[in-house]
Amino acid sequence: MAGLRENYFPGLEGVMVNESALSFVNGAEGKLFYCGYGIEELASNCSFEEVAYLLIYRELPTASELEAFKAKLVAERYLDPHLKAIIVLTPKQGHPMAVLQAMLAQLAMHDPEIADRSIEARRRKAIRIIAKMPLIVTYFDNLRHRDRTVVRRDDLSHAANILYMLTGKVPSPEEERIFDVALTLHMDHGCNNSTFTARVVASTEADIFASVIAAVGSLSGPLHGGANERVIEMLAKIDSIDEVEAFVVNLLETKTKIMGFGHRVYKTMDPRAVILQELADALAKTKQSDGDLGIAMKFMEVARHKLDALGKRDIWPNVDFFSGVVYKTLGLPQDFFTPVFAISRVVGWIAHYMEQMEGNRIYRPRLNYIGRELGSPFVPIEKR
Amino acid sequence: MAGLRENYFPGLEGVMVNESALSFVNGAEGKLFYCGYGIEELASNCSFEEVAYLLIYRELPTASELEAFKAKLVAERYLDPHLKAIIVLTPKQGHPMAVLQAMLAQLAMHDPEIADRSIEARRRKAIRIIAKMPLIVTYFDNLRHRDRTVVRRDDLSHAANILYMLTGKVPSPEEERIFDVALTLHMDHGCNNSTFTARVVASTEADIFASVIAAVGSLSGPLHGGANERVIEMLAKIDSIDEVEAFVVNLLETKTKIMGFGHRVYKTMDPRAVILQELADALAKTKQSDGDLGIAMKFMEVARHKLDALGKRDIWPNVDFFSGVVYKTLGLPQDFFTPVFAISRVVGWIAHYMEQMEGNRIYRPRLNYIGRELGSPFVPIEKR
Repeated sequence: MAGLRENYFPGLEGVMVNESALSFVNGAEGKLFYCGYGIEELASNCSFEEVAYLLIYRELPTASELEAFKAKLVAERYLDPHLKAIIVLTPKQGHPMAVLQAMLAQLAMHDPEIADRSIEARRRKAIRIIAKMPLIVTYFDNLRHRDRTVVRRDDLSHAANILYMLTGKVPSPEEERIFDVALTLHMDHGCNNSTFTARVVASTEADIFASVIAAVGSLSGPLHGGANERVIEMLAKIDSIDEVEAFVVNLLETKTKIMGFGHRVYKTMDPRAVILQELADALAKTKQSDGDLGIAMKFMEVARHKLDALGKRDIWPNVDFFSGVVYKTLGLPQDFFTPVFAISRVVGWIAHYMEQMEGNRIYRPRLNYIGRELGSPFVPIEKR
Repeated sequence: MAGLRENYFPGLEGVMVNESALSFVNGAEGKLFYCGYGIEELASNCSFEEVAYLLIYRELPTASELEAFKAKLVAERYLDPHLKAIIVLTPKQGHPMAVLQAMLAQLAMHDPEIADRSIEARRRKAIRIIAKMPLIVTYFDNLRHRDRTVVRRDDLSHAANILYMLTGKVPSPEEERIFDVALTLHMDHGCNNSTFTARVVASTEADIFASVIAAVGSLSGPLHGGANERVIEMLAKIDSIDEVEAFVVNLLETKTKIMGFGHRVYKTMDPRAVILQELADALAKTKQSDGDLGIAMKFMEVARHKLDALGKRDIWPNVDFFSGVVYKTLGLPQDFFTPVFAISRVVGWIAHYMEQMEGNRIYRPRLNYIGRELGSPFVPIEKR
């Protein structure tokens, strides 16, 4: 796609900035691959830990490699008392995404290998980041909302421990499974803005913490993360399952944007949404059918049906529709939806950081100057 | 410049990502402009505050506008006690760039206007960021090195107060002037990596703090900030002015890279280096001629002379050569050179953030997939 001027690409649409062996998105056919493997098979067969290993090492682990990797993650499942003391001093009204940035920078300063640029040290730092990000936000949430702390459980999986630390109770197998799958589905997705940010910062040879902190900032932007929060805000306006149909009809008649429907890349149903929908259906069966999850599933059905009838066959519920609904059902506070996205996507950021370091070239594009005439005469302040 | 494949631009070299009315670099002629005005006139006539106003408002201020702007900066020249308490808990071995990231995220959480997206609120947040970044790093430095605090002086300029808080004494007019000019010269420089990072994060509509925090991370990378630290490390190997010539000859004979010489864009002398050299010469006259500054100026002369004799007429001392030397002479700790760069460049980041918000389009490029065959058969873990 050519720009208006030679090499002019606002938003960099269609520009390839590097090569990658990580994820691949096929929007036309609704397919997503991590390291060549279909997302459906990975979600059905693997845990968060196994898929994280795949993206970081670009190979599926053997059973013993996976056990060793899980053990390393569990061994890093703690926060230094200094870090906890800083979280105590952090304002309760702070957004958890800013808490993540603040505390990742503190972690960087405590990291014994901060200056070690070897691939092995980078992987150890990556494991520390993946293990500790959930602890930072759950510790913060328990302090601000419940004035308590929850001690981690080393016998739980990565996904189950996060739910345990947020809610104070061990999740059911169904709850653990759906959260684990949601984390897996959000790990990587081509050159989205936060992943690109991670690569741009990596290209200066900054440390992996600096790259992740920058990516968290990108994901905090309303045009990137946060779409699933808006789904919940929309659904919160519906009081009971009987009101769903009229609510959807009204949205369509008033041409109001339906949150969680449609996708820039996918022209058919987002493959991640297909997987989450199935799990959300199963989860709904274990809950009251007229509760929030029941309303959401009904909304999805009605909206699809009405959109079809209007001939809008390329507008499908996307991953944000189901993730928001699932996170709410699992008891996550609403301002945790984007941090949970970050806790998952960080695996992709790290994998892209590692990849960028191979044959790295610093990103340094240009801006087309359209300002005041160059060499304009300077006017002394007393004559302005 | 065409890539190997259509629209394939690793490092984005030659790609224009947006339009800009801020700085313009003419590498062939060795010229730099901010908002159309030559850097020489701005450095000769204006203070840091005046040039910061120019980049943020894209107009030179009248005398009363400048006074009001300075007063706003001084009014934000303080840190909340909570923030100071967190700096006390921050590890002394932490790099000041990580301290900046950690504390900017804390500032964001304390900011009363964090969610206000109006241009006026953004400018107020910008002023808070510019005023408080120097306080964060000087407070940290006084704690880690001297176990003391230095109370700000509201009667001093932005530049003089930074030197005062770092050294505990009011700088001479010459010292204040050269530091003020050094800050002015580093404020903006086209679409360098940290400025691009700021724009990429801004394009998600993330808040201005998130954008600046990401840019700090980029500048912390050795391929971006930090070049002036390497100049000082090189010069530290020379014990006296009599050894300079032999040292330079040895570098050239062993084809060792001369730090602080040569520039990717400038094919003649970097205009910022021309200005700093003149001021460094004047500063040298007030110091012992055989001290560090004397050695550095002698090094520069000898290296230029020898490079000329070898026919290398396009290798000039760059801005990093002189800024490193000047910062050392002014008594700045070596790991403060990059933070001082950040304290200056943040004005550019903020100006680019504001500009990106006008007709914003999210940056979302592509990666060329070169990995494992898509749809590779999944192998269950027990069969790996």
